[in-house]
Amino acid sequence: MLKYKVLNTEGKARRGVLQTAHGEVNTPAFMPVGTVGTVKAMTPEAVASTGAEILLGNTYHLMLRPTAERVAAFGGLHKFMNWPKPILTDSGGFQVMSLSGLRKITEEGVTFQSHLSGEKFFLSPERSMEIQYLLDSDITMAFDECVKLPAPHKKVQDSMRLSMRWAKRSKEVFKDRTGYGLFGIVQGGTYQDLRLESVKALTEIGFDGYAIGGLAVGEGQEEMFKVLDYTACALPDDKPRYLMGVGRPSDIVGAVARGVDMFDCVMPSRSGRTGQAFTSHGVLNMRNACHTDDHNPLDAECTCPACKNYTRGYIHHLFMAGEILGAILLTWHNIHFYENLMKQIRQAIEENRFEAFYQSFMERYKDERKF
Amino acid sequence: MLKYKVLNTEGKARRGVLQTAHGEVNTPAFMPVGTVGTVKAMTPEAVASTGAEILLGNTYHLMLRPTAERVAAFGGLHKFMNWPKPILTDSGGFQVMSLSGLRKITEEGVTFQSHLSGEKFFLSPERSMEIQYLLDSDITMAFDECVKLPAPHKKVQDSMRLSMRWAKRSKEVFKDRTGYGLFGIVQGGTYQDLRLESVKALTEIGFDGYAIGGLAVGEGQEEMFKVLDYTACALPDDKPRYLMGVGRPSDIVGAVARGVDMFDCVMPSRSGRTGQAFTSHGVLNMRNACHTDDHNPLDAECTCPACKNYTRGYIHHLFMAGEILGAILLTWHNIHFYENLMKQIRQAIEENRFEAFYQSFMERYKDERKF
Repeated sequence: MLKYKVLNTEGKARRGVLQTAHGEVNTPAFMPVGTVGTVKAMTPEAVASTGAEILLGNTYHLMLRPTAERVAAFGGLHKFMNWPKPILTDSGGFQVMSLSGLRKITEEGVTFQSHLSGEKFFLSPERSMEIQYLLDSDITMAFDECVKLPAPHKKVQDSMRLSMRWAKRSKEVFKDRTGYGLFGIVQGGTYQDLRLESVKALTEIGFDGYAIGGLAVGEGQEEMFKVLDYTACALPDDKPRYLMGVGRPSDIVGAVARGVDMFDCVMPSRSGRTGQAFTSHGVLNMRNACHTDDHNPLDAECTCPACKNYTRGYIHHLFMAGEILGAILLTWHNIHFYENLMKQIRQAIEENRFEAFYQSFMERYKDERKF
Repeated sequence: MLKYKVLNTEGKARRGVLQTAHGEVNTPAFMPVGTVGTVKAMTPEAVASTGAEILLGNTYHLMLRPTAERVAAFGGLHKFMNWPKPILTDSGGFQVMSLSGLRKITEEGVTFQSHLSGEKFFLSPERSMEIQYLLDSDITMAFDECVKLPAPHKKVQDSMRLSMRWAKRSKEVFKDRTGYGLFGIVQGGTYQDLRLESVKALTEIGFDGYAIGGLAVGEGQEEMFKVLDYTACALPDDKPRYLMGVGRPSDIVGAVARGVDMFDCVMPSRSGRTGQAFTSHGVLNMRNACHTDDHNPLDAECTCPACKNYTRGYIHHLFMAGEILGAILLTWHNIHFYENLMKQIRQAIEENRFEAFYQSFMERYKDERKF
């Protein structure tokens, strides 16, 4: 059971607070991804310093290594990884589809091979709930199936309906406790009738929050926004809405405008390791020779440690020399950029000027096409 | 010109303070190695938190990339890498011998090929002094030649005498300023007559400090201690003594007992990246499966962030998953271990109980042979 309160709305955009067992999360919120129990290249203190209030952990990765039972023996994922704040875990469904070998899907669940060892594993709604319970996840995601898009209506419909039956089984075995919650996941691809059928099925079961899954898989921003236009507002007003795996800054601002409250994406951390920096004027590739003699910070408007203490020239040097500190500083900066964007979004909604913020952000932030 | 004051001695062991342009260094001191303008896998704040008061930078690496002129344009190495405390730079001589291709040594200097680009470079006493001046190094090392040991007496003698002529040229062009100093480097391999001839040559020139070079190159601890036995005490009492590239904890404690004041070594950082942890009871390999379910910290007596906040099981997990945080935490711990060892050594000498400390350290610290 999670408490969620909407503090203010402007158009469809919402400013809220979610209460969990490990503290509160101000929404709209961005969750950095800590796949196997660490946000890559970051200490938890560094992650917290960016303003992040909640992390995402991956059930699939953690069940394979170190295993959920082992994390539980270490006192849960918060203690294991030294992150005392809220954690949301995904259900494992998405990664089973994208990473594992030799999958077999039945009504009961999915049998698959580990991408690490080749060993066979089984995931079902019941086992996914058990794993997320062992991880001590504040927000558990219902177990779902994800189809590769584009796919024909019939295939997406069959998959969505299986996910809805799995959502019901997830709810039945989820151990409800104060401060812990279960989110259902809306599926249905880019078909409006299926999305709305999925929303109806989930709201009849009843969840602590609702995620929108199966997007940001190559359909393009316009198509994604179309789905959000009819899906987000169909969801209950009094529960948080989470757009899974999204995304670029403009995706996030646009999705907030369509009523979404929560996001996660590997983009700030992954791009930080490969030399891409998000700035208030677009994206920089720090491997580019144009930065060699640049004495400016990554972003003059940024207050993160990478921008306060280092030049573009130094960070370029670190990437050219293959130094780990390059990945550390750029990941730090990028997550700080994302968290600062969320802070600006929250303030704008509080002050009923989000629409103006959205427009001015899009005018300045032109260079996203690199992603 | 550097001020050095010996505060206390116990036997040959010395407790001192060195004043530089960027602050003071308490000796015996260990200098973490920041080869290309970063201690690998560490932020400068993390390095400072270990108690480190001085870093070593490598002239050879920095002259190739980003170049000394570029570092100077960024305001010197301290500003470039955000390390406001003292920096010692080596002369480049050692790495020219160990890393570069196609060397040609003449009386004038060394022509060599960059190991990065194959481009030709020239280093001489004059150019080495210029580079270290551009880097704004607090402690500049005289340019020397290093021969591969073991080598016949004649070869070591010729090389040492060339290094002594180069030391004189280094001194002649070094730009002396308050807080900046030049160290000479004693060469001569494991030949007592050559070491003493080298000491005499250097002390006649006169330096702010004296390094002992050409050791820790495979001669073994016993042989190294023999050289220190007759070399260290032949050096002026009122100047700091620096044993270059050393070493294991037991090397350091033994060298302090023989009158050495300063050390540098890549061991704590390099071993941190490969999963080796120094502890008060010896060395642990964190990749070993025995740590999988271990809920203890790396070292129960250690106060570093890795030991305060994480279990051996978690750190093992990070190494098995190939996570950068593993390298971060273990490097942090290892440098903290080294700096804490130096702190204990300094306190022991202050309190005239270093001999007892040495003995008890060696009894507990048994497992160094892995290195």
